[in-house]
Amino acid sequence: MNVHDLPTPALIVDVDAFEHNVATMAAALPGNRLRPHVKAFKSTALAHELAVAGHQSFCCATVREVHGMAATGLGADLLLANETVDIRRLQALTTATDARVTVAVDSEETVDAAARGGVREVLVDVNVGMPRCGCDPTDAGALAERARAAGLEVRGVMGYEGHLMMAGADVKVAKVERAMARLLEASAAVGGDVVSGGGTGTYAVNRWCTELQAGSYTLMDSSYGSAGLPFRQALHLWATVVSTNRKGGYAVADGGLKALGMDHGDPTVVGGTTWFCSDEHVTFAPADGAPMPSVGDKVRVIPAHVDPTVAYHERMHVVRDDQVVDTWEVDLRHW
Amino acid sequence: MNVHDLPTPALIVDVDAFEHNVATMAAALPGNRLRPHVKAFKSTALAHELAVAGHQSFCCATVREVHGMAATGLGADLLLANETVDIRRLQALTTATDARVTVAVDSEETVDAAARGGVREVLVDVNVGMPRCGCDPTDAGALAERARAAGLEVRGVMGYEGHLMMAGADVKVAKVERAMARLLEASAAVGGDVVSGGGTGTYAVNRWCTELQAGSYTLMDSSYGSAGLPFRQALHLWATVVSTNRKGGYAVADGGLKALGMDHGDPTVVGGTTWFCSDEHVTFAPADGAPMPSVGDKVRVIPAHVDPTVAYHERMHVVRDDQVVDTWEVDLRHW
Repeated sequence: MNVHDLPTPALIVDVDAFEHNVATMAAALPGNRLRPHVKAFKSTALAHELAVAGHQSFCCATVREVHGMAATGLGADLLLANETVDIRRLQALTTATDARVTVAVDSEETVDAAARGGVREVLVDVNVGMPRCGCDPTDAGALAERARAAGLEVRGVMGYEGHLMMAGADVKVAKVERAMARLLEASAAVGGDVVSGGGTGTYAVNRWCTELQAGSYTLMDSSYGSAGLPFRQALHLWATVVSTNRKGGYAVADGGLKALGMDHGDPTVVGGTTWFCSDEHVTFAPADGAPMPSVGDKVRVIPAHVDPTVAYHERMHVVRDDQVVDTWEVDLRHW
Repeated sequence: MNVHDLPTPALIVDVDAFEHNVATMAAALPGNRLRPHVKAFKSTALAHELAVAGHQSFCCATVREVHGMAATGLGADLLLANETVDIRRLQALTTATDARVTVAVDSEETVDAAARGGVREVLVDVNVGMPRCGCDPTDAGALAERARAAGLEVRGVMGYEGHLMMAGADVKVAKVERAMARLLEASAAVGGDVVSGGGTGTYAVNRWCTELQAGSYTLMDSSYGSAGLPFRQALHLWATVVSTNRKGGYAVADGGLKALGMDHGDPTVVGGTTWFCSDEHVTFAPADGAPMPSVGDKVRVIPAHVDPTVAYHERMHVVRDDQVVDTWEVDLRHW
């Protein structure tokens, strides 16, 4: 099928850009030096492409993501890099699969939930500077002891320097080093051989982790696209112009708030200037000097944030030279 | 089931507040004076509640919404209040159902698509001040002529004064009157007996439409909640505290960017102050003087914008007095 025959709005993956991104990252962080984070793309089909590229361990943000990855045969080493006290969900997971499942813990409650949920291995999640999950480094050792007392294997530590993903190049290394010093302090107290952390924005400078968690690099978005990374924009929303207003100088395409994650701001209409999004529309002006599009024309819209964009969609259409060559179901959505 | 036993994050509907909202609107705009807009809630189960309250005509934003409403027996009078040139989708719709389907048109292309798609009735969509779809009032008559020449029945006009939903009470009436003057000018040129427009924010002041399009009033959000309307907050995201940081003064609950529409800004954590959202988390501080919650506690999070919030979820749990009394599938998602 030609991409112009797709019903819109539709997520399309430029497979040339995707393959470039996967190869670039696999060259920098081969095999298990990278633990790709499936939360960015929520698709086992895409995850299989990463397995082909040599990555065998994966990172998940929800129990459902772990379930789906295990069910598709990618369960060699799955990390739930998130806290949960939902014992029933953990039990359902651990009884349904013999995949290797490691869970992040940062409190007595989450340690106890992991043990009661049938989890066998944990990482101690450490706060490295961003106000989200993770214990203080000075509490990590005691938490590891409690976990071992509960019969859990403690593989090591994790910590996410999410607040530094977009830090300027001049300060990024120093700031990441300080954040990782907290993680290494915890690692010394906890033991184990895993130091897991990082993301697309710090993959090139984080030398302290034994494995790096990144997912956005596969598809990218306009936010990471402004960060000077060697990855290409592989994901677009494909939309149809459904209305034009020559007097007003704007056109309207059929992709809006229910097709685009908006927390990082407005999307970018290729060849235009975004005015605003409504539920099912993006209003935009043609770029300076460009003609007004016609009703029925197609436009490409670059999301500002990949993760919550993909989570709106049932599938991604994989495109090479305007031909749809594959369809990747977004089968890891919801919780 | 008690609401505390629901897996999180979960959308919950406070059915007392919902019933208040439905009754309040039905008293103001009974029967076909209201054309409830299903885009706000995307659920045929919720739509059936509105039919019980006396509303028989409905408004949709996507072809899939029209399909679903027709298939569930609510096809007495369905308006696709949106432009489309997807002839195949229209044909699939019109051949699959004998529901009464009216489609908005604002250009020669959309008129032709409606005719070729097997649509029998249209409304001429008129721009009443917001830069989105809708033709100029001076073009409406010619467009109606073209539609009639193509064999289409022209029922009248529609126009959405979306830019005035949050206008201050002191200027709202005058501004809506000016917007509706454009619609009435078009109506005089077009003919037909339908003048459709409005929304939750203008339902009380728009006296010029024969039928009012509103959907958000059923569930509400923090944005409309600030507008002095007589509707109660009926929708919350139910989330579990998964991490706390007493030294930092914040807690983290398991509902984030993939569970909340973010275009209107951060959600409101009931009993707390929202710091920020991540993909699967909201970080918040307890309200002044309130104790830090414990890991495992539940919190209610009010979305800033209802429509793109609901579109992330598979279902809504209907709750009365902490008991889950019903489940409404969000079965009209996607396109």
